[in-house]
Amino acid sequence: MRKESDVLGELFIEDDVYYGLQTARAALYFAVSDARVHPELIRAIALIKKVAAQTNTEIGDLDPVIGHAIVQAAEEVMSGRWDDQFPISAIQGGAGTSTNANVNEVIANRALEILGLPKGSYDRIHPNDHVNLHQSTNDVYSTAMRLAALQLLEELSWRFAELQEALQEKEREFAHIIKLGRTQLQDAVPITLGQEFGAYAQAIARDRWRLYKVGERLRQVSLGGTAVGTGINAPLKYIYLVNEKLRMEFPFGLARNENLVDGIQNMDVFVEVSGLLKAAAVNLAKISNDLRLLASGPRGGIGEIRLPELQAGSTIMPGKVNPVIPELINQVSIKVIANDLAITLAAEGGQLELNAFSPTIAHCLLESMKLLRKAVDIFINYCIKGVEANEERCRELVEKSTVYATVLTPYLGYDTCSELALESIRRGISFRHLVLEKGLMTEETLDKLLEVERLTRPG
Amino acid sequence: MRKESDVLGELFIEDDVYYGLQTARAALYFAVSDARVHPELIRAIALIKKVAAQTNTEIGDLDPVIGHAIVQAAEEVMSGRWDDQFPISAIQGGAGTSTNANVNEVIANRALEILGLPKGSYDRIHPNDHVNLHQSTNDVYSTAMRLAALQLLEELSWRFAELQEALQEKEREFAHIIKLGRTQLQDAVPITLGQEFGAYAQAIARDRWRLYKVGERLRQVSLGGTAVGTGINAPLKYIYLVNEKLRMEFPFGLARNENLVDGIQNMDVFVEVSGLLKAAAVNLAKISNDLRLLASGPRGGIGEIRLPELQAGSTIMPGKVNPVIPELINQVSIKVIANDLAITLAAEGGQLELNAFSPTIAHCLLESMKLLRKAVDIFINYCIKGVEANEERCRELVEKSTVYATVLTPYLGYDTCSELALESIRRGISFRHLVLEKGLMTEETLDKLLEVERLTRPG
Amino acid sequence: MRKESDVLGELFIEDDVYYGLQTARAALYFAVSDARVHPELIRAIALIKKVAAQTNTEIGDLDPVIGHAIVQAAEEVMSGRWDDQFPISAIQGGAGTSTNANVNEVIANRALEILGLPKGSYDRIHPNDHVNLHQSTNDVYSTAMRLAALQLLEELSWRFAELQEALQEKEREFAHIIKLGRTQLQDAVPITLGQEFGAYAQAIARDRWRLYKVGERLRQVSLGGTAVGTGINAPLKYIYLVNEKLRMEFPFGLARNENLVDGIQNMDVFVEVSGLLKAAAVNLAKISNDLRLLASGPRGGIGEIRLPELQAGSTIMPGKVNPVIPELINQVSIKVIANDLAITLAAEGGQLELNAFSPTIAHCLLESMKLLRKAVDIFINYCIKGVEANEERCRELVEKSTVYATVLTPYLGYDTCSELALESIRRGISFRHLVLEKGLMTEETLDKLLEVERLTRPG
Amino acid sequence: MRKESDVLGELFIEDDVYYGLQTARAALYFAVSDARVHPELIRAIALIKKVAAQTNTEIGDLDPVIGHAIVQAAEEVMSGRWDDQFPISAIQGGAGTSTNANVNEVIANRALEILGLPKGSYDRIHPNDHVNLHQSTNDVYSTAMRLAALQLLEELSWRFAELQEALQEKEREFAHIIKLGRTQLQDAVPITLGQEFGAYAQAIARDRWRLYKVGERLRQVSLGGTAVGTGINAPLKYIYLVNEKLRMEFPFGLARNENLVDGIQNMDVFVEVSGLLKAAAVNLAKISNDLRLLASGPRGGIGEIRLPELQAGSTIMPGKVNPVIPELINQVSIKVIANDLAITLAAEGGQLELNAFSPTIAHCLLESMKLLRKAVDIFINYCIKGVEANEERCRELVEKSTVYATVLTPYLGYDTCSELALESIRRGISFRHLVLEKGLMTEETLDKLLEVERLTRPG
Repeated sequence: MRKESDVLGELFIEDDVYYGLQTARAALYFAVSDARVHPELIRAIALIKKVAAQTNTEIGDLDPVIGHAIVQAAEEVMSGRWDDQFPISAIQGGAGTSTNANVNEVIANRALEILGLPKGSYDRIHPNDHVNLHQSTNDVYSTAMRLAALQLLEELSWRFAELQEALQEKEREFAHIIKLGRTQLQDAVPITLGQEFGAYAQAIARDRWRLYKVGERLRQVSLGGTAVGTGINAPLKYIYLVNEKLRMEFPFGLARNENLVDGIQNMDVFVEVSGLLKAAAVNLAKISNDLRLLASGPRGGIGEIRLPELQAGSTIMPGKVNPVIPELINQVSIKVIANDLAITLAAEGGQLELNAFSPTIAHCLLESMKLLRKAVDIFINYCIKGVEANEERCRELVEKSTVYATVLTPYLGYDTCSELALESIRRGISFRHLVLEKGLMTEETLDKLLEVERLTRPG
Repeated sequence: MRKESDVLGELFIEDDVYYGLQTARAALYFAVSDARVHPELIRAIALIKKVAAQTNTEIGDLDPVIGHAIVQAAEEVMSGRWDDQFPISAIQGGAGTSTNANVNEVIANRALEILGLPKGSYDRIHPNDHVNLHQSTNDVYSTAMRLAALQLLEELSWRFAELQEALQEKEREFAHIIKLGRTQLQDAVPITLGQEFGAYAQAIARDRWRLYKVGERLRQVSLGGTAVGTGINAPLKYIYLVNEKLRMEFPFGLARNENLVDGIQNMDVFVEVSGLLKAAAVNLAKISNDLRLLASGPRGGIGEIRLPELQAGSTIMPGKVNPVIPELINQVSIKVIANDLAITLAAEGGQLELNAFSPTIAHCLLESMKLLRKAVDIFINYCIKGVEANEERCRELVEKSTVYATVLTPYLGYDTCSELALESIRRGISFRHLVLEKGLMTEETLDKLLEVERLTRPG
Repeated sequence: MRKESDVLGELFIEDDVYYGLQTARAALYFAVSDARVHPELIRAIALIKKVAAQTNTEIGDLDPVIGHAIVQAAEEVMSGRWDDQFPISAIQGGAGTSTNANVNEVIANRALEILGLPKGSYDRIHPNDHVNLHQSTNDVYSTAMRLAALQLLEELSWRFAELQEALQEKEREFAHIIKLGRTQLQDAVPITLGQEFGAYAQAIARDRWRLYKVGERLRQVSLGGTAVGTGINAPLKYIYLVNEKLRMEFPFGLARNENLVDGIQNMDVFVEVSGLLKAAAVNLAKISNDLRLLASGPRGGIGEIRLPELQAGSTIMPGKVNPVIPELINQVSIKVIANDLAITLAAEGGQLELNAFSPTIAHCLLESMKLLRKAVDIFINYCIKGVEANEERCRELVEKSTVYATVLTPYLGYDTCSELALESIRRGISFRHLVLEKGLMTEETLDKLLEVERLTRPG
Repeated sequence: MRKESDVLGELFIEDDVYYGLQTARAALYFAVSDARVHPELIRAIALIKKVAAQTNTEIGDLDPVIGHAIVQAAEEVMSGRWDDQFPISAIQGGAGTSTNANVNEVIANRALEILGLPKGSYDRIHPNDHVNLHQSTNDVYSTAMRLAALQLLEELSWRFAELQEALQEKEREFAHIIKLGRTQLQDAVPITLGQEFGAYAQAIARDRWRLYKVGERLRQVSLGGTAVGTGINAPLKYIYLVNEKLRMEFPFGLARNENLVDGIQNMDVFVEVSGLLKAAAVNLAKISNDLRLLASGPRGGIGEIRLPELQAGSTIMPGKVNPVIPELINQVSIKVIANDLAITLAAEGGQLELNAFSPTIAHCLLESMKLLRKAVDIFINYCIKGVEANEERCRELVEKSTVYATVLTPYLGYDTCSELALESIRRGISFRHLVLEKGLMTEETLDKLLEVERLTRPG
């Protein structure tokens, strides 16, 4: 046990614990749920601590021995080695101050340990005076949010590319399967199953592109702005160098925000990114809804496709196989839409030089990205790749329907076709039969007009 | 043209216009859309003006001649006669001050006219000093919001009662129609079409009850609280009497909020009411989604019911009849859900002694209520009453399905039934046939177990 | 390692693991995040398993030896002993089937162990044929959601009662402190700090009442409805007895839903409950926003109150103490509002006989309740109880303001007071001074009219 | 009166009315509110009718006499001349079919009139067979949504550019005014009022850019796709030519969507656009919240700026001038956020080949754009341009605060400064005084360090 203290009081900390007083207090005061800060955010902060220590060493503001120890400790945090030393609730007051303090404390104590000194010897390495030197939570946190989001965005964009490919493969596989197109859930005109999957692929392609492009907006970082973006207490040399070093260490391009005051206080870029995640969620939900409809049945629904059988569908209904993966995707979409609202509300809650609710923005944004990343993986591998067409059923439904009414409208007129369609349903006979019965066309002409391949192409 | 002026400047107003300077300015400054303040809110404010004038006359603070003219003018506004004199945007700054001023001005000018005096003679009847005497926008507006909402709530509750009855009629009508029950859109176990409509009716019955009960929360009014609920500038005699008179004039029970400060600043009761409108919207959306699914087809979908044919469904596809009323209901539900968010955000935006966004709360809440009122009417008359069962299709789908697997689980075991179900689908033969083929039961036993009526009752 | 298998394949399970094949598959397929099913829901399901086993034993459908073992195992799950045996993601496809299967498997294997049999001996105790006997996921899950929610609701209602009391204590403590009332953030009329806290207490009292009353709606349970509410495969005797036993075991009143089909498919009651949590969140947010405003400064803001100093507020700005608990509460409110949206969307997504997204409803609803429970505790103990008034500052701001203009309106008229107010601001002198300077009133009269206590009471 | 009829029945229409049977029915069935379809959408559809008629004439499918009459009638609709002939509710079932039919009917009847024929002579010019020739509601409506949105987007982008300029002008005007920077509403470090407005301008610059860029996504149109994107019934020559003509007539660049099936069914591009409107709303709300805070008082709040005085702020409190324009902007932001939810839900509701809720998407998206367009205009002209700094108050608050603690941290250390800050507040003396009293620095050094200009720049 060691004792730590500040102006507000003192606290005993277990010896094997790397965090200190500020963390322990925050863990207590903010204990609203088990959800912790995403490791991706912790590691991004640690990267900033590393380049700040390198910079401060280089400009002579930090003893090289201390600087090197801090760098090593920060790298360990970046590697995930000390993930269990971050006990504060993801939802927290203080605009991220506690999370920044937590990283500072863990790095300070680990650096002390590296130097063979006991934890808590803050007169030697101080979480604020050394690890946090020339920084404020406010520039560190708003920058780390961008770094963490950028990395996940890159991964996400790749996942959507894979999903697009998986859908395109089905587009090719199902290119020849004629089926009923439906508008407003009513039988409409012929289409191919391949065209349906092609439309999904196209929507997902837009998501991929949007997620790739929006990275641009996150590349503007505000390190050196300190408390409110005026850069108070940060030497000019430090500001230039720390951003340079960050750029070199980080795998994606970065630029210093030309307006640091804006970069620290405004959260609209996260609303923008979340809005695109929401658009992706809408596409995923639409596709999932469609797959559930198309796979409905097996006998009392549409039944045009079969989804992979992953688990026994019911504890009471034997043989029932449910569309569990699309259902999962639908629910992930709901979470992403709800997170978008949380991010919007939190972003709107910014006041003057800071947004006190940025921990909620960070938490919900990273959560949405991670949910989507996993969900898209699962969607591809346990659902899309295994979708099978029930070709026979597809053809059966086209032929039983009245879609030929539309096809023949240019030849027989809209009003005539309307009446024929209603009559065919009333009498329970096929539209084709009715046209022949009434002698409106010869069989030969009709067959040529209803050739399936030409039904799904313009002209 | 008459000239009106105040400390901020002067303005010319057309002679035939009853509103004055404050209104004209607000109409200009807040011109963000064509949506005007709901007449229901205007009329509720006019009722307050009426009882305030009566009270002020009675306690001797208002010249009876002026008082009577104000009362008459207020009654005319309540009757809708001057609806076109309220040109201010529904979304407006100022926490309703402009709308209150608008009512004050229209009543003052109309009262002047009644007394044979020219409009604008505010030295005789002043919008503030006479019409608004002992009132503040803040107590008037928060009270009027409750009055307007209460009246619409009453109507709405009746509409849901009618919808419940319409659904129950269908429950009776369809009580004998056996059909496939579906869970997760997959064929599950038998149910009757009547049971399905019975479940809808039960959900709507809850809405009716909730909307009826929540009126209680709106009955607490804060008239007399003036600016912040402390009742500053309002004589005690006035406060008691004005509430008494309001109670007598208003068709539903009212009580004076025991905490006027709370009554003026807190908007949670509107969030509560809107939350229940949202729950009703969810039920309406669920029913509409189901109707669209059940009516899908006519041949390439489920097709178990038919919706009334109201319009030609397509400009290009003859004979297509679409589920346009359920689609309308779905979209009204979406609007109600979106309005609930607007109300929530506006309510959360209250600060200290007042909520500056109460015009948005009033507007969105009344809009949701009026939308639902009309939508439920349309739903009943153009959809529910005309729903027809396709009894033959219902039976066909049950018999083609594997739902008998579940029925026989208690007799043959879960694992056996699972295998039989899969085999029946694979081979394309009925479950019943398979059981007999394998000699697992006699035909007699099987028929008894599958008697349709006992399939949809417990035991 | 043991091998488990079903029609879809086989899997090896570690010996010390109590769950089986269905759980292992679901844990794999639904692995979108680390968030697990809330233990409260698991335990509620286990309670149902217990009373079902008791009932089935009593009606002779279950061997008493097996029945007792199941009861004992279920009680252990209820106690939390096996909390680590539920590895499935909270967000999951399959409408809760996997969670129900997980409970069935853990209880079956633990019951086998109790009887000295090896885990996996499902021919002796089968998760479906014995533990799930006469049940379906659908009636079990929709009932368990209500049980779990009811218990948390009860706790929550108590928390709001405590918060109400804490606020009322402050109401009394601050009853004598005159301060500036503000509307639209502008100086308005005098009020006491006690009245402000009284208004908060009144709003919270409504929350307490609402949360208490809405329990009624959750007391209707649908056990015995099995798959779709028709009670298929459940003996009548079982249905009556299992509900009776559940009622006796459960600490709060329950009743059997008279319409089991409705009880299983419709989720509007959870939307209703969540809507009230949202209303509570709005009140909490309003109060938190106010506390942050009132505590702003200490010198450059309003500064009328002081919040407890819990942590060093900044890594860079010494001595800064931030309103971290109100900020926490604001963010919890945001989460509750976002969860309400998720619940609404999931509830609206129900189709025909079931809502496939009920796991999301359960997860988000219980999360909101648990967040609020903790947050209210923290709010009371680390914030409200420690709020201190800065009485001197309160008085200073009243006296510097122009609120006396309003107070004197009945005596000097609205237009005169408007002009005086503007002049006092322009010249930077007090309103009181100006009235005397202009000889509009004697000092004696003025003092009597401005006596502070009468400024905050009607009349 | 003329009689119109179709397969579903007949109806009498007034002679002076240009719309026909389909419109009349839709106006009746969908009468949920007074909100009509935005004229911008009607006019975009009319443009499509014009180019379709030109194309059909050119390829020989339409009699030139009829074609020219249709073109002239369509141009009149585009000009707004027949705006009163579109009586259908904006929220409507049928995926826009009724609105498309409404345009077809008005153009057909007006074209008949132009040719000197009586309205209703559909054997001569038929709304479907001629005006709608080779089109479907589905390709027309999804294309018209894009055209209408593109035009408003262009205007909106200009408005944000103007707002940016107005803010930058204030940035320059207030560049020299030192004031208190606040984080979490607590006094933090010095900043200039110009820097604050500069941060607003930067956020708005992002909005401008985003709104400009997202136009790209809307430029892909699907004309020729007809019912589901397969182009059924549309000749190839028509498809190429009609898009070519549309491109030439429309003021912004357009391209044919390479996947027409996708272009008709997927609505994610509108979710994307709305998400950016939401981001803009968040920025506007943040700025409005800040302005209301900064203008709070005039004496009991921050009072660092003055907003233009537009109206008497209170019916009871003389001289009170409220921040009504920022309040308006806040409420418009709330509406835009709520509309974004409506758009998201509607977009997610698409099923298979069509989105039946596209009328809600169109209505809410155009409403948000038009609200923002007006609101930004009002914000610039009635608020931003008139913001005045209270320079004296700005300076006073800096000097009374403890922000110098932060400034001196690099010289005196964090812990020392923390203690000094607390002591200065406790004793009510300035930080500067305390440092000198304790002899920690000479006056000369201190003055140099506290030179105001260097407090707001890095280094």
